[in-house]
Amino acid sequence: MRPFDFDPPVRAVFGEGALDRLGEVAREHGFRRTLVVADPPIVEAGMVAAAGGRLEDAGIEWTAFSGLAPNPDSRMVEAGRAAGAEADVDSIIGLGGGSAMDCAKGINFVLTNGGHIRDYWGQHKARRAMLPSIGIPTTAGTGSEAQPTALISDAETHAKMACTDPKAAFRAAILDPLLTLTQPPEVTATAGFDAISHAVEAFVTAARTPVSEMFAREAWRLLEGHFETVLTEPENTAARGAMLFGSHAAGVAIAQSMLGATHACANPLTMTYGTTHAVAIAVMLPHVVRWNAEAVGDRYAELLTVSGRSSTAITAGDQLAARLEELARAAGLPLSLDEVGARKTDVPALAANAATQWTGTYNPRPIDAGAAEALYRRAFS
Amino acid sequence: MRPFDFDPPVRAVFGEGALDRLGEVAREHGFRRTLVVADPPIVEAGMVAAAGGRLEDAGIEWTAFSGLAPNPDSRMVEAGRAAGAEADVDSIIGLGGGSAMDCAKGINFVLTNGGHIRDYWGQHKARRAMLPSIGIPTTAGTGSEAQPTALISDAETHAKMACTDPKAAFRAAILDPLLTLTQPPEVTATAGFDAISHAVEAFVTAARTPVSEMFAREAWRLLEGHFETVLTEPENTAARGAMLFGSHAAGVAIAQSMLGATHACANPLTMTYGTTHAVAIAVMLPHVVRWNAEAVGDRYAELLTVSGRSSTAITAGDQLAARLEELARAAGLPLSLDEVGARKTDVPALAANAATQWTGTYNPRPIDAGAAEALYRRAFS
Repeated sequence: MRPFDFDPPVRAVFGEGALDRLGEVAREHGFRRTLVVADPPIVEAGMVAAAGGRLEDAGIEWTAFSGLAPNPDSRMVEAGRAAGAEADVDSIIGLGGGSAMDCAKGINFVLTNGGHIRDYWGQHKARRAMLPSIGIPTTAGTGSEAQPTALISDAETHAKMACTDPKAAFRAAILDPLLTLTQPPEVTATAGFDAISHAVEAFVTAARTPVSEMFAREAWRLLEGHFETVLTEPENTAARGAMLFGSHAAGVAIAQSMLGATHACANPLTMTYGTTHAVAIAVMLPHVVRWNAEAVGDRYAELLTVSGRSSTAITAGDQLAARLEELARAAGLPLSLDEVGARKTDVPALAANAATQWTGTYNPRPIDAGAAEALYRRAFS
Repeated sequence: MRPFDFDPPVRAVFGEGALDRLGEVAREHGFRRTLVVADPPIVEAGMVAAAGGRLEDAGIEWTAFSGLAPNPDSRMVEAGRAAGAEADVDSIIGLGGGSAMDCAKGINFVLTNGGHIRDYWGQHKARRAMLPSIGIPTTAGTGSEAQPTALISDAETHAKMACTDPKAAFRAAILDPLLTLTQPPEVTATAGFDAISHAVEAFVTAARTPVSEMFAREAWRLLEGHFETVLTEPENTAARGAMLFGSHAAGVAIAQSMLGATHACANPLTMTYGTTHAVAIAVMLPHVVRWNAEAVGDRYAELLTVSGRSSTAITAGDQLAARLEELARAAGLPLSLDEVGARKTDVPALAANAATQWTGTYNPRPIDAGAAEALYRRAFS
């Protein structure tokens, strides 16, 4: 086993109705006046009021901030900082999908350490302590509630900034499967497939550790085993719970092991064509798995074993890729680059961009522009 | 999935030579003057001097306390407290087997909260903060370095007191496989089998959670897969590493899931005949597994799958029990109560005692004196 330094993951409070424990958990972490950062649809769904009720019952004052949108940017973070400063909060709650989690963490950076969120782009840039915070995901997908990273776009340059600091991590995540019942079907599909890609990539990266492998293996077991159920039976709370904890476990895994070539190839598609992240992931993941199998076929075979399928290191790449295509098909996700409107003439530029993505550096097979070009070409039908 | 509240486990710094990171890790946690609690054989093996060198290099003063023995008692804890107070330490390091870990945690209770260690028998009895501490196991066995419990005997009444408080948990565990190379062969055998029993029991208890299951499953995979190797190739550092992290992961699992009927039946044997804990465990575990299979055969089948054996819920109990007997035989451990000098006439008294053991309450099949009596009778050859 290679050396590792396993930093404890976030406390996870899981269960149907776990939201009822919000007041108790917030008090344990010293919350008195808190900022609830939530997407507008979450406010409309009454979840902010529900969370607020639990806080009030525990004697905690709260202010809502919902001035955010998918892929939150630096202006939204600044607006949230102003709201938090105005209310003189001593704590923060992120409630919603990955955007609310990221925005809550971003607000925490600038509220406690001052300046602009871009000052924290990179690793360990915060000098001062940050406010205690709690993450409450309402989608089973990004696993952002398990990660010490705020992913924020620069409103001027549009650069995607990953601001990572252990101090930014939530003290606790409340994982309540009932909150995920309201996900629109397309979010269940895309967020769920995104989580699956986290498990598959985290299980094989060059930065993996025995502990990240354990979380990724468990994430895969839960996600692969329940994704089709939540697609066909959206009210199945047991399956929703498995997806929610599975996506959380995948988040714990990637916080340690990072991601791989699929994410390196997906980002240029989003930047060039505006392709939804999970759609780009769904198209690229099976091709990356077939290509990576030369290096990590034995590990893919282990994932197949976990999900009750037998294989060998030789056949595992094809078998796992076929299973992923089956899952993408069940989710109604596209299977080729043609379907997302990509053009073959763009491939060299996409590949050059992919080769610069930091996630590629953790892929178990080194990926350069030539390899990325081959992967994109295979992804056309 | 049933509800759970997953408190983060201890930070684990793993790797061959991880002891070299002691100074750095101790500084991160604010150590300036520390008490190194170590068994006499660990002092003789030069490990305390080695640890001390790393502390000095990091500018940390240290004092050794080695007035302890296996199954540490309240007098040893009091002597350690006096040594810590005399040296005015701000932190504690436990270095050695489970006894050193338990003694270090016990000293921390009385040094910071005053009184007698028996004041902390039970759960959450410490009112004040405790000193930051680091655990460095030199055996792969108890997993005590992962648990918030100090197991201390009362020097007057001989009661085994489990003193549990999250504040007593180590801030970090340094897991260096090289330190376990000096385990005497019988310790490798008994401590290793004890760890295996932790994984098997933790995987099925009534208090198990999806997270404790994950740690127990991984512990089983590592321990079952490497136990025979460390017995036959004691210098195999890769196998030593797998056993060390496996026993740690089993410790993380039982901190959440508790233990079961095997431990409930083993303790009366130790109390009555002075049977070594792991020997009593080795004799009872296969019988408990056969008996529990009626309730958790499907879960035992999953453990067999993890270790590459196929089975069904119907056959899993017998198959797993046979594998455990094979492992016990490889370790030279006895397989029947006759071999440990137990008498059939004592069975009713042993069973009455077993039915009062707290670990029995977490067993997946309720265990009363009648059930315990049947288990003991099966364990005679």
